[in-house]
Amino acid sequence: MQASPGSKKIVGVFYKANEYAAMNPNFLGCAEGSLGIREWLESQGHQYIVTDGKDGPNCELDKHIPDLHVLISTPFHPAYVTAERIKKAKNLQLLLTAGIGSDHIDLKAAAEAGLTVAEVTGSNVVSVAEDELMRILILVRNFLPGYHQVIKGEWNVAAIAYRAYDLEGKTVGTVGAGRIGKLLLQRLKPFNCNLLYHDRLKMEPGLEKEIGAKFEEDLDAMLPKCDIVVINMPLTEKTRGMFDKYRIAKMKKGVLIVNNARGAIMDTQAVADACSSGHIGGILIIYLPVLPEE
Amino acid sequence: MQASPGSKKIVGVFYKANEYAAMNPNFLGCAEGSLGIREWLESQGHQYIVTDGKDGPNCELDKHIPDLHVLISTPFHPAYVTAERIKKAKNLQLLLTAGIGSDHIDLKAAAEAGLTVAEVTGSNVVSVAEDELMRILILVRNFLPGYHQVIKGEWNVAAIAYRAYDLEGKTVGTVGAGRIGKLLLQRLKPFNCNLLYHDRLKMEPGLEKEIGAKFEEDLDAMLPKCDIVVINMPLTEKTRGMFDKYRIAKMKKGVLIVNNARGAIMDTQAVADACSSGHIGGILIIYLPVLPEE
Repeated sequence: MQASPGSKKIVGVFYKANEYAAMNPNFLGCAEGSLGIREWLESQGHQYIVTDGKDGPNCELDKHIPDLHVLISTPFHPAYVTAERIKKAKNLQLLLTAGIGSDHIDLKAAAEAGLTVAEVTGSNVVSVAEDELMRILILVRNFLPGYHQVIKGEWNVAAIAYRAYDLEGKTVGTVGAGRIGKLLLQRLKPFNCNLLYHDRLKMEPGLEKEIGAKFEEDLDAMLPKCDIVVINMPLTEKTRGMFDKYRIAKMKKGVLIVNNARGAIMDTQAVADACSSGHIGGILIIYLPVLPEE
Repeated sequence: MQASPGSKKIVGVFYKANEYAAMNPNFLGCAEGSLGIREWLESQGHQYIVTDGKDGPNCELDKHIPDLHVLISTPFHPAYVTAERIKKAKNLQLLLTAGIGSDHIDLKAAAEAGLTVAEVTGSNVVSVAEDELMRILILVRNFLPGYHQVIKGEWNVAAIAYRAYDLEGKTVGTVGAGRIGKLLLQRLKPFNCNLLYHDRLKMEPGLEKEIGAKFEEDLDAMLPKCDIVVINMPLTEKTRGMFDKYRIAKMKKGVLIVNNARGAIMDTQAVADACSSGHIGGILIIYLPVLPEE
């Protein structure tokens, strides 16, 4: 099919879900689901090509680079948009991330080429806040060892109970209280914890009172108070490795950590050492230090 | 040591925690921790004997049955107080459960012998409500398959994502809204769900409004509306097997269930069949149908 005048050639790069696509017709973030926009795009006269082939010589994506107008991708199966690809993409106007995080795009090269790079701001904030609260509960209540015992047919209550606690009454501190941090604090409120937050900015008093959290201007003064530390900071050159052995040493012995930031915000060796020594009692991360595909 | 006049012989039956007791000096619910009341009891002139030996001929507990005054036990390592033991316990006055649930005691025989049976009412309600919310999030967000992939070094986003959802916007119904159910609903409120509850009694309007849940008088009318069903009912002769194949069939296809009641409130075969067919999308239980020690 040749794109008609005025119509655009849109390429979507998504992972193949195979049998999982068939199991849920509402599963749209995969090649099979194609974001659920095919019918609408085609009714508007556009051409919509979807592939999971994005790497290696002669991959499907590279065939379309010379004449595509719009490229849509997702963070979990990212189409890497290098300077080289941008140079070849003579018709390219728009790079869309169907989600959050556009580190797969060479933003400098895109800006120089006058391209619009857009993502769906806010689309994952509720998901992440829910996930964080789940991970806090899993750590505090020591869920996983009990789960493993049941799966293996074992029964040793002491091995779980000796470090299983209620969240109620614990001190939870979030490092970063942007949109996700605020949603987390709101969800924590009925748990009757002592809530702290460190951020560059203090919330306006009405919101702070509603959320019921106390501002801690000095991170190093907050950390020793926390039973649970939640990290909600972007990874930048300034925050890379900010949780090093000195900062971890300031935390309570046995501290539980939920790291929602990119892995590189923590010094991996320092985390491993503190887990071995018991200074860190438990940690659940959302990002691996390096994604398997990187 | 012979108990002095006026003093009592108190026997505590708890599981041995072995190395886990040494790992946490505040771990009191085990034989080593002995509930942390030894010093106080002995300062009051009482004798306090603690053992984990509770079953079989010549077990430690049986040696003390003839002259103990008070017997303390816990639900996870219960000292079974049979009619036979009660008959032999000539000095027995008080049977204490350090926790909730006294089904290890022959209550009829205890009543006939004029014994007081007591437990620590309310001691676990916050724990259970927190645990339920954790289990709801684990099911809705499809945590466990992702956890297993990471542990095994696998990477298949589709296998998780095709059935991972936010809790926000889902309909959650609790069957039973006593103390635990109410604490659960309060903790669910900031998640912006549609909250329903079935109980014999409607809450008083102020509390219902504060909690933000809608009363459903007819259980069979509530079940088809729920994405997540939480069971918060006591096991009685009336509720035994109440979640049978007919009632499960009324639930939404793919329903997620958190069963906090004793396992026998559900028909195990009906649950297994509905899990196989996919009618039940996921279930997390707190009690096994039968405890390993039973």
